[in-house]
Amino acid sequence: MSIYKQTCTNLLDLSVPQISSWLSSFDSVISDCDGVLWIYGKALNGAADVMNQLKAQGKNIYFCTNNSTKTRAELLTKGLELGFQITEEGIISTAHATAAYLKQRNFDKRVFVIGTEGITQELDFVGIRHTKAGPDYMQGTLGEFMAQHLKLDTDIGAVVVGFDEHFSFPKMTKAASYLSDPNCLFIATNTDERFPMPNLVVPGSGSFVRAIETCAERAPIVIGKPNPAICESLIKQKKINPSRTLMIGDRANTDILLGYNCGFQTLLVGSGIHQLSDVAQWKKSSNPEDKKLIPDVYLPSLGELLPALVESQSGGSY
Amino acid sequence: MSIYKQTCTNLLDLSVPQISSWLSSFDSVISDCDGVLWIYGKALNGAADVMNQLKAQGKNIYFCTNNSTKTRAELLTKGLELGFQITEEGIISTAHATAAYLKQRNFDKRVFVIGTEGITQELDFVGIRHTKAGPDYMQGTLGEFMAQHLKLDTDIGAVVVGFDEHFSFPKMTKAASYLSDPNCLFIATNTDERFPMPNLVVPGSGSFVRAIETCAERAPIVIGKPNPAICESLIKQKKINPSRTLMIGDRANTDILLGYNCGFQTLLVGSGIHQLSDVAQWKKSSNPEDKKLIPDVYLPSLGELLPALVESQSGGSY
Repeated sequence: MSIYKQTCTNLLDLSVPQISSWLSSFDSVISDCDGVLWIYGKALNGAADVMNQLKAQGKNIYFCTNNSTKTRAELLTKGLELGFQITEEGIISTAHATAAYLKQRNFDKRVFVIGTEGITQELDFVGIRHTKAGPDYMQGTLGEFMAQHLKLDTDIGAVVVGFDEHFSFPKMTKAASYLSDPNCLFIATNTDERFPMPNLVVPGSGSFVRAIETCAERAPIVIGKPNPAICESLIKQKKINPSRTLMIGDRANTDILLGYNCGFQTLLVGSGIHQLSDVAQWKKSSNPEDKKLIPDVYLPSLGELLPALVESQSGGSY
Repeated sequence: MSIYKQTCTNLLDLSVPQISSWLSSFDSVISDCDGVLWIYGKALNGAADVMNQLKAQGKNIYFCTNNSTKTRAELLTKGLELGFQITEEGIISTAHATAAYLKQRNFDKRVFVIGTEGITQELDFVGIRHTKAGPDYMQGTLGEFMAQHLKLDTDIGAVVVGFDEHFSFPKMTKAASYLSDPNCLFIATNTDERFPMPNLVVPGSGSFVRAIETCAERAPIVIGKPNPAICESLIKQKKINPSRTLMIGDRANTDILLGYNCGFQTLLVGSGIHQLSDVAQWKKSSNPEDKKLIPDVYLPSLGELLPALVESQSGGSY
């Protein structure tokens, strides 16, 4: 248990002995990727050095992403290219976890996929049949589409919704129609709402999921953060001890909330979605759900831990 | 005020004198269209006779639809073809009401439309500039789309979301990006969730609206039922007296709730979305919002009012 529990203490305000003490309070580190380790395919300054240093100091390192567009193998390649010393077993991803979820349940029907090849390839790896990723656009008028072009597959047993840049009305119609069978599983890889970029807002999986929820009038099983299911096997197999695990993230309603839900320590970094100003609002809020979003500690960006990490390692103070 | 207020009394259980008394309790009738008067372009059995008979008996007749895909002129043509004696002034539609809403506010920028030509033509009628309806699909990869193909128009001052069978990721991205300017209006024609059909579920405008709400992190102004705004001018201009107005509908969370919100009497018909089994659930519910969905009276379909209407008119009993 962190002595900084839900205080959002800025690590830059701590002394080297305090940092050393904090570093010795966890054995495992689970870090979000986009917004913490890299952004738009570029490593964030110092992030790889920090993660590699933590590994060198004996921490178990896991990378945990809600990004459903990549397989674990692709994430491994990307991480290695950007200088992170990781292994495929150290990668927790929603596309992989979705396939694992279905495999564990001996799912033997076909999956209707709203998503990309990140999902379909992970399904292939475990031998689960699925529809193709890619465009499925409107053909003809609405009447023609419904009468002639819309073909429903009677073998579909699950609808999986992740990030899909080819999201469309035909996909929505098929998903809602399949989900009118209560035996058809409804799985969301994650519910991240959006990705703000300079002068631009990119919709996240959560936007697609809300659309399908609305027309299907059903709520999905959510695989990704903040659902603790994504870390369940790590905890059950005793690969990590929750109270001695640090969760690092930039989005409080996924990363920090996952930490809250699993009993991890939490570190919010300001290099992505949420900032100290957001935390200040949650501290003032009377909604108990908002309190769960407050991290134990904070850093403007992960790279800023490097000096204290190196100094602490040199043992001058502790 | 109806003596049957929120009792969901089945009109078929009443005597002719009771029906006559009920008929004399309102002067104006506002009827939903799809699911009450017609379905898939076909008039429902007896519906035109009932509406025309009510008109012949001196009632003010209004047709009120959340369907944003048609102009008032198109709805008039359709109603006349199906045998309903209506006028364009008697048609309350969300595409028309959306254009009127913007016109009343002297809106002079351009509208980004997620919707069909029903909306763009109504905007044309009042001289408001807008983007085109129709396909706007993904070009290239996600990276290419954002770097090369995505063009944002700096003159957009409102995003309107209605039913759009060409709903797509590029449209979502543009809408969310425009809405990151707090001065950009966000208007939903309506929030009907879906249209269940045999072996098929067609997503409604509400599904698109929820998707945009999620990635824009903003709530829209909703023009259509159950928002009383759609009947505001009728009430303000004293064309109708709310307590002596009957709202007829098949969808409780739009039609009956509009009636509740405006102080109308309400009649639920079972020929569309909601059934007596739904009403039974709302009666049992402890949620006060559910209570608002309970209609005063009920009929399996509007046409079944005809015998009592004719008999009552013949004056035998009253």
